[in-house]
Amino acid sequence: MQQATDKWLIDVTLPPPSLGDNTADADRLIAGLKKRLDTSHVTIDRPILLNLPELLRQNNYRIRCVLCKDQTTWNVIFLTGQEDHHAIAGLAVDLGTSRVVVRLINLIDGRAMAESAFDNPQLTVGVDVLTRIHHADTPGGLQHLQELIIDGLNQHMESLCRQARIAQDQIYLSAVAGNTAMTHLFLGLNPHWMIREPYIPAVNRPGWTRASDLGLGIHPCGRVLVFPNIGSYFGGDLIAGILYSELHRQEDTAILVDVGTNAEVVLGNHNWMMACAGAAGPALEGGVTKMGMMAGPGVIDRVDIDPKTRQFRIHTIDDQEPVGICGSGLIDLAAQMFLAGMIDVRGRLVPGQSDGRYKEKDGMGYLVVLPADQSGTGLDLTIGQADLDSLTRSKAAMFTILETITTTVGMTMEDLSAFYVAGTFGSFIRPTSAISIGMLPDLAIDRYQPLGNSSLGGATLALTSTAAVDEIDAIQDRITYMELNVNQDFMNRFSAAKFFPHTDPTRFPSVKVWEP
Amino acid sequence: MQQATDKWLIDVTLPPPSLGDNTADADRLIAGLKKRLDTSHVTIDRPILLNLPELLRQNNYRIRCVLCKDQTTWNVIFLTGQEDHHAIAGLAVDLGTSRVVVRLINLIDGRAMAESAFDNPQLTVGVDVLTRIHHADTPGGLQHLQELIIDGLNQHMESLCRQARIAQDQIYLSAVAGNTAMTHLFLGLNPHWMIREPYIPAVNRPGWTRASDLGLGIHPCGRVLVFPNIGSYFGGDLIAGILYSELHRQEDTAILVDVGTNAEVVLGNHNWMMACAGAAGPALEGGVTKMGMMAGPGVIDRVDIDPKTRQFRIHTIDDQEPVGICGSGLIDLAAQMFLAGMIDVRGRLVPGQSDGRYKEKDGMGYLVVLPADQSGTGLDLTIGQADLDSLTRSKAAMFTILETITTTVGMTMEDLSAFYVAGTFGSFIRPTSAISIGMLPDLAIDRYQPLGNSSLGGATLALTSTAAVDEIDAIQDRITYMELNVNQDFMNRFSAAKFFPHTDPTRFPSVKVWEP
Repeated sequence: MQQATDKWLIDVTLPPPSLGDNTADADRLIAGLKKRLDTSHVTIDRPILLNLPELLRQNNYRIRCVLCKDQTTWNVIFLTGQEDHHAIAGLAVDLGTSRVVVRLINLIDGRAMAESAFDNPQLTVGVDVLTRIHHADTPGGLQHLQELIIDGLNQHMESLCRQARIAQDQIYLSAVAGNTAMTHLFLGLNPHWMIREPYIPAVNRPGWTRASDLGLGIHPCGRVLVFPNIGSYFGGDLIAGILYSELHRQEDTAILVDVGTNAEVVLGNHNWMMACAGAAGPALEGGVTKMGMMAGPGVIDRVDIDPKTRQFRIHTIDDQEPVGICGSGLIDLAAQMFLAGMIDVRGRLVPGQSDGRYKEKDGMGYLVVLPADQSGTGLDLTIGQADLDSLTRSKAAMFTILETITTTVGMTMEDLSAFYVAGTFGSFIRPTSAISIGMLPDLAIDRYQPLGNSSLGGATLALTSTAAVDEIDAIQDRITYMELNVNQDFMNRFSAAKFFPHTDPTRFPSVKVWEP
Repeated sequence: MQQATDKWLIDVTLPPPSLGDNTADADRLIAGLKKRLDTSHVTIDRPILLNLPELLRQNNYRIRCVLCKDQTTWNVIFLTGQEDHHAIAGLAVDLGTSRVVVRLINLIDGRAMAESAFDNPQLTVGVDVLTRIHHADTPGGLQHLQELIIDGLNQHMESLCRQARIAQDQIYLSAVAGNTAMTHLFLGLNPHWMIREPYIPAVNRPGWTRASDLGLGIHPCGRVLVFPNIGSYFGGDLIAGILYSELHRQEDTAILVDVGTNAEVVLGNHNWMMACAGAAGPALEGGVTKMGMMAGPGVIDRVDIDPKTRQFRIHTIDDQEPVGICGSGLIDLAAQMFLAGMIDVRGRLVPGQSDGRYKEKDGMGYLVVLPADQSGTGLDLTIGQADLDSLTRSKAAMFTILETITTTVGMTMEDLSAFYVAGTFGSFIRPTSAISIGMLPDLAIDRYQPLGNSSLGGATLALTSTAAVDEIDAIQDRITYMELNVNQDFMNRFSAAKFFPHTDPTRFPSVKVWEP
C-alpha cells in the first residue's frame, strides 16, 4: 500500500544494492525518501541507523517509515517492514489549564481510536495559571509541575491504549496544543518572564521535541510537536483553533473567539490575520460566582425563564440534581433574567420583578435560583449582585475587545462572514443569550459556529496531515498580534458595553425585554 | 569580539526585548543567528533552551554560541556570555587502523593546543581490518570494538586536556576521519555487509552525531562529525586528505595517493574527481617481512648503499639501535639494492653481487642487512627473497592502479601537476627510491608532495572552518568512484610493472643501475 506523503507514515520500496549501485544503506534510504517526499533534507535517528542494514535486508527493501519534519528536514524516527500489521498511533493532546483531553489517532488511516479527558493534575498546585507560574519559581517547583502533567498524561495514555488494544510504544508521534504557560510547563521551561514586563516566553515555536527528553511514555524514539504561540497571551491552543476552523484559508473575513479568563480573538482571512487577547474577567470561567463551577454532572448549563409566569426551567448536565452553574449557564441565567425584567439595563437586580426570589444579606442583594429543597447540595443556589457585576464587566470586556479589533482593521462586526466560538464554552453557549446580555454582537444566529474542542481538533490535524504542520508555522508567521491599548477609546467603549445589552440598544435590534 | 561566521563559535549581541519587540527568548536568538549566519534554519538544543532565559538576561543579551551544521540546519549546542574567557576546544581525530592521532584545537583562534598519538586499542582484537569486521559479528563483538576505541580516545583525551590545561567538557566539537570500517566501528555500526558482495556500508555520510550517543567524553551536548566515505573501500580519511591537499580546488589535474594494504587514489581538479582503490598487498605496511614493523624508535626508515664499496648506511628512527624496518625503509633498501646490482630486474637476489651478505636457509635465499652484533635485537636483521617477491607484487599493483586510473581519464602520469602522497608513508618515503623500484612514475621530484597526516589535517580544517564542512560534502558528491576492473589490460600492465623498475625501462629514464 503506497501512502500519500500527506501522512507521517509512508511506505517506500528501495532498489536493492548491486555492484553497480553500491550506495550505503542509510544513503539509499535517504535517497528514496528525498525522491518520494520531494525534499533535499532527510535524517535518520541513530537507533534506526544501528538496525538499518538488517531491517532493509529482512524486508527486501520494502519498508514503512514514520517521519516527522523539523523546519525543512524530515526525520525518520521509526522503521519497519511493509508487511508489519501492528498499529502505528499518534496522541493528540488538548492541554487545558483545567482539563486535559487526549485522543489516540491511527496514523495509517487517520481515524480516532480512543479518547478520554482528565483534570489537569497541576490543579493541585493552583487553579489559575498565575499560581502555577509562581510555583515554578520555588525550589523544585518547575520540575514538580512538569512531572504532574507528564505523569498524568502517561497514566491516562495507559488506559487509552488499553481501550484501543495497543501498546504505549506503538505511539510514535504526539501533538500538543495548549496556552503558552501550559506548554512551557509541559516542556519544563520556566514561564517566569512571561508574567513580567515585557512578558517574554522562553519560546514561541518549540517545534518537535524527543518524547524521551520529556519523559512522555510513548515510543522511545517518538517525537512531540508542541503548537507554537504568538506570545505569552496567545497560545498554541488558538493556533490549533485557527487551523481547525480553516479561518486562515477563507476568502471572507471571519473571527474566532476563545472565551475564558482571557478572551483571545483572531480576525482575518486567507490573506491576513490580526489577533489580540485581553482579560475578560473570571466570571465566564465559572468558579467565581458563589455557585459557579466547571462543567460537570449536576451543573446548570441552561436556564429558561418564562417572562409571564416567572417560572425557571433549569437544565443540568446529565440531568443530575443541580449543584452549581457553569459559565454558559450563567450567561443563560443573566440573559433570561434580563429579558424577563428581573435585572435592569445596568445589570442590577430588580427586587420588585423577582417573584419573591430576591433576598438580601449584609446589605447585598441576591436571587434564589433554586431553593434548598430542589438543589443537590441541600442549600439555596443563589446569584448575587456581586456575581452579576462581575459578569457585566466580563461581558463588557469581551464586547469591547471584539469591537476594538474589528474597528482597528476598519471593519464592523456585521462585515464578518463567520463567528467561530472555540472551546467547551463555544459548544455550550447559546448565542442568543450571549447576544441578549450584549457580550457578543447581534448577528444572524447562523453566523455563530461553535467549534467544539478546536484545540484537540487542531492537534489531531497535525497528526493526520503533514501539510497541516507547515500550515501551523505559516499561521504563526502570518498573524499580526495587536497589543490591546487600554486608552480612552477603549475605556469609552467599555463603559458603553457595561449596559445590558449596550448603551446603544439600536445595535442589538433582536433583543426585546418582556413588557407586561 | 565579533567572530567570522567561518568559525563554529560566534559572538552575537541581541536586541533586548521590549513591549514593542516581545519575541520569545529562543526565537530572538534564532532570529539573531539567522541574520548573522545568513541561513533560514537554526535549532537550539534542549539543554540550552532550558537555561536560555536566565543566560540571556545575565549576559545582557551579549552571548557566545558554539554551533554545528547538519545539512542546511545550524544547531546551537552551547551558549555562554561574551565575557566568558574559558577555552572552547575541538578534538580532531585521525582514526587509523593501527594508529590513532588526536589533536586539540582552540575553536576561538583555530590553533592546535596539544597533540598525541596512540595505538588503536582494537589491535588487541586483530591487526587487520578483516579480523575486526568478523569479530563484530560475534556476540558482543561490535560493542566491544566500539568500546575499545571510545575508551582509548577518552583516556588519551584526558591527558591531552591535562597538557592543554582545560577540562574535557570544554571540548564541544570533534571531527573524526578514518577508513570506512574504522568509522563504522567508532559509530557502533556493524560493517558486516561491507565485506560481502556488493560491499555495502551502513552509511556513506554519517554527518554529526551526539557525543553522548557514542560515549565520547567531551561536553554532554557536544557533537562529532564523522567524515563521509565513498564506499567500503574509499574512506573518510581520503576525503579528509583531499580537503587538506586542496586537490578539489585546483585548476590543473593532480593526483593523491594513500598507500597501505590498500592503495587509494584520487585524480582530479576543481571540476571533477575520479577515485579508485585496490589491494596493493601488505608489503608496504610493514609487519609482513620478517623484520618489518610499524614506524617507531629503532626502526630502519632509510637505507643507503654505496654501489662501489657495497657499504650499507642505515638510519633508524630516533637513532636507536636497529630493531626492524618500516615500509618506507623497505622501499629504500630494495631501491638501493637494485641500483647497486644486488637484485636484478626481476627482483631476485643476485648472490654474486651481495658482498658476502647472501645466505640460504631451507633453499630460500636471504640477505643479511645487519649482522646480529650490530642489531638491537641480538639477531641478524635479514631480508628474504619471499619479502622481495611480496614487495614486487605490491609495487606493481600500486603502479598498475596509477596507470589504470590516469589511462581511464585519457591522461598520462606526466600530465599530472602534482602527486600528493598522503599519510605517514608519504612523509617518510623517498620518492627517488619509490621511482627506482617502479612503484611511482618517473616524474620530476618536485611534483611529489608529501602531505603528512592529511587525515588529521582534514579533521582539523573541519573544526576551524565551517566552509570546510560544506566542502567535505561537495567533495563526496563530486567524486566518481571507479570500480577497478581486473581485466586483461590490468593484468598485462601488472605483469609489465613486476619488473624493476618496469619491462619498459624507457619509462624510467632517471633510474640508472650502477655498472662497475
